[in-house]
Amino acid sequence: MPKEIAINAFHMNAPGHSWAGLWTHPADRAIDYTDLDFWITIARTAERGLLDGIFLADVSGVYDVYKGSPDAALAAGAQIPSNDPSVLISAMAAATQNLGFGVTASVGYEQPYYLARRFSTLDHLTKGRVAWNIVTGYLESGVKALGDTAVRDHDQRYDRADEFLDLVYKLWEGSWEDDAAARDKVGRVFARPEKVHRISHHGTYFDLDAIHLSEPSPQRTPLLYQAGTSARGRAFAARHAECVFTNQSKKQLTESAVDIRRRAIGFGRHPDDIRIFVGATVIVAPTEAEARDKYEEYRSHLDVKGALALLSGWTGIDFGDYGPDDPVRFVKNNNSVQSKLEAMTIRSADRVWRVRDLADFGEVGGRGPFIVGTPSQVADELLAWVDEAGVDGFNLTRVVEPRNLEDFVDLVVPELQNRGVFKTAYRPGPLREKFFGHARLGPRHPGRAFRYDAHPATVGIPAE
Amino acid sequence: MPKEIAINAFHMNAPGHSWAGLWTHPADRAIDYTDLDFWITIARTAERGLLDGIFLADVSGVYDVYKGSPDAALAAGAQIPSNDPSVLISAMAAATQNLGFGVTASVGYEQPYYLARRFSTLDHLTKGRVAWNIVTGYLESGVKALGDTAVRDHDQRYDRADEFLDLVYKLWEGSWEDDAAARDKVGRVFARPEKVHRISHHGTYFDLDAIHLSEPSPQRTPLLYQAGTSARGRAFAARHAECVFTNQSKKQLTESAVDIRRRAIGFGRHPDDIRIFVGATVIVAPTEAEARDKYEEYRSHLDVKGALALLSGWTGIDFGDYGPDDPVRFVKNNNSVQSKLEAMTIRSADRVWRVRDLADFGEVGGRGPFIVGTPSQVADELLAWVDEAGVDGFNLTRVVEPRNLEDFVDLVVPELQNRGVFKTAYRPGPLREKFFGHARLGPRHPGRAFRYDAHPATVGIPAE
Repeated sequence: MPKEIAINAFHMNAPGHSWAGLWTHPADRAIDYTDLDFWITIARTAERGLLDGIFLADVSGVYDVYKGSPDAALAAGAQIPSNDPSVLISAMAAATQNLGFGVTASVGYEQPYYLARRFSTLDHLTKGRVAWNIVTGYLESGVKALGDTAVRDHDQRYDRADEFLDLVYKLWEGSWEDDAAARDKVGRVFARPEKVHRISHHGTYFDLDAIHLSEPSPQRTPLLYQAGTSARGRAFAARHAECVFTNQSKKQLTESAVDIRRRAIGFGRHPDDIRIFVGATVIVAPTEAEARDKYEEYRSHLDVKGALALLSGWTGIDFGDYGPDDPVRFVKNNNSVQSKLEAMTIRSADRVWRVRDLADFGEVGGRGPFIVGTPSQVADELLAWVDEAGVDGFNLTRVVEPRNLEDFVDLVVPELQNRGVFKTAYRPGPLREKFFGHARLGPRHPGRAFRYDAHPATVGIPAE
Repeated sequence: MPKEIAINAFHMNAPGHSWAGLWTHPADRAIDYTDLDFWITIARTAERGLLDGIFLADVSGVYDVYKGSPDAALAAGAQIPSNDPSVLISAMAAATQNLGFGVTASVGYEQPYYLARRFSTLDHLTKGRVAWNIVTGYLESGVKALGDTAVRDHDQRYDRADEFLDLVYKLWEGSWEDDAAARDKVGRVFARPEKVHRISHHGTYFDLDAIHLSEPSPQRTPLLYQAGTSARGRAFAARHAECVFTNQSKKQLTESAVDIRRRAIGFGRHPDDIRIFVGATVIVAPTEAEARDKYEEYRSHLDVKGALALLSGWTGIDFGDYGPDDPVRFVKNNNSVQSKLEAMTIRSADRVWRVRDLADFGEVGGRGPFIVGTPSQVADELLAWVDEAGVDGFNLTRVVEPRNLEDFVDLVVPELQNRGVFKTAYRPGPLREKFFGHARLGPRHPGRAFRYDAHPATVGIPAE
């Protein structure tokens, strides 16, 4: 039986997400990101298509590397405005039954004590349908916003993130025993105090001495997503992530998936304990000609400066310093794209990539699948990523919404179902149970070592 | 024409709020605080009764002064568990059209940059129906949770809170001009960069250098609630609050309302720019006998230790050190209740108050109206507070819910409407417009000085 693939709709509480400018398309409703109706429509459409979740990106700060100013991003609505994703969830949860919700939150800005409470609350209100996309990265503008002077050292950032995770595991897994919340109306006992444990954590980056403010939620620890492609980022993902979200070429992805799974073994985990998701842009129509027409029509609404503003923020390179015809060199095995005055490509040996290509819809090198075609062609290409790169799931990039999600649900989902690689009904239970068969962290997950009933022998974390 | 009174339902994202133990009543559904259906029912009931809002308390930390342990609070479910209130709002907003939402958030723990974004997001999603209940206070357990060693000095806490407010005003009022978000699909301009201003704040407690992440929401600054009864707290309220929420006796309240309004004049405001809300417990039935029966029935579900745990946390006095028959002395003009071995009461000169009375439903001294009776009796007493103490509105304490709210909506609201003191339809517009006739901060509010177009002459804040 072929592997069943997972699919999330990838969004952001903003007018523009991955592809700058598409909000200007007459059919696009992303400009209504401030309106709950937009989000409820997206959620209901996703659930109609049995999608696994809505995955909400977030970023702190603005994209102001391009020409040293946020002007291009502002004019294009490129990830600015950027509203809080966490407060969107309950309205979408009330309108759905099974859909999961991935919420991005940064370990760089949040207090573990409050982040833990917020996710526990969301996990309660959604009946166990929440995932946390753990972000460690920064835009320098976001750091300045908080009065810091420079982006923290990369590896130190991950050391702090590791400690942050240990601390929230203690709160989620270690503070309240499973039967601590008696909720006994007749006996008049809400919680059994002897089963609620104070967490005392005195570490390098955090001090805490408290009980967790929330009783255990269906999943306790939310399903954990993480994206990290550096060596240190992979080590972090291998230890913590249950789902890894990445945007890489098929070849890069194959390498990094193997590497993360190998590292996971070093943490006592099984390679299958980690699902690999890749970002995918899909434009589908009943015929290839219609799909190409749609693509060209959408493409005409791209905002080139906005796209370069995003790319400049991601890479730290000011593409405003280069002309549109300057050639670009991609550096392999490094998640950053660097502009150089030499010609080299990953995708095509006989083509020179130029700055203007980087801004073009679907042409950004080193990223995941960009598919324009019939349902059958889309399925073929998605399954090629599954077969060749070991991908388990896809985060569908926002294009012209909700139309593009409707197209996927109406055209691609039935095709995938016919091929036996997509579910025909939701599985019961919380999000983690739907994915892995158990609602709580699996027995091999390092976070389990922080459970109140963990045997000390299981605590050992291998030194890297 | 008599003054129209405002009414909020006062809640907390917790099984128990002001009255410990009532969750054990068979009809009470507060134990379902983890379920969105409970909150949507509360919201729809409140809107059916044309209530002004749902007001959500929050507290950081646990009540562990009583016998030096959180055990009594845990067993009683007394404000612990305590889940995040902000993530509840969007589900209730999607189920209602006019109801306001007061969200408590502390300036002691939050980052101004993110708090400003979260409230802007909530204000967008609710179409301008959000209020912020500004909290400056601490439970020591909440401070320890974050690794601090002691509760900050009281006055310094307010100095920091003042700076916090100035900073979020800058973000809400000063960063984006009214027409900065062009949202022009045809012209392909989301925001006009020249109308988005960077906020540079370098103060005693906060540093920030950023544009606000959210475009202007219907109210910009959310409607501001605050509760402060100390001299420094009143000065803070007089400067910032549009609604003051307090729990005091009629006499104390009369004094503090006059004092806050007098101080408001010193900040260039008008006494009518501030509405005074008092917490009220109302148990109503068609006849007085039925109301008394209901009261006794509810009362039998009170948790005495849980009540003393709350009171110990509020006052800092461990009532576990005293016997139930120890007499209690109330110290006037001080918001704390102090236990002394001498007999003195506020309410009754010929009665000795004892520790056991403090735990009793409706007997806590120095608090707001506690009314058991017919709709007519309830209206009489509420209006006595309006007439005698200058009260503008009431926050209805959670009792046995949603039943008690339904009783109020079905029995008291029509009585108040018949007397011409309660609206018969919602006014249009955002929450502040419903209250004050204008969606944005009023022209005399000190926060207006931080608008991008404020004339420097209006900035002056009088030295206290």
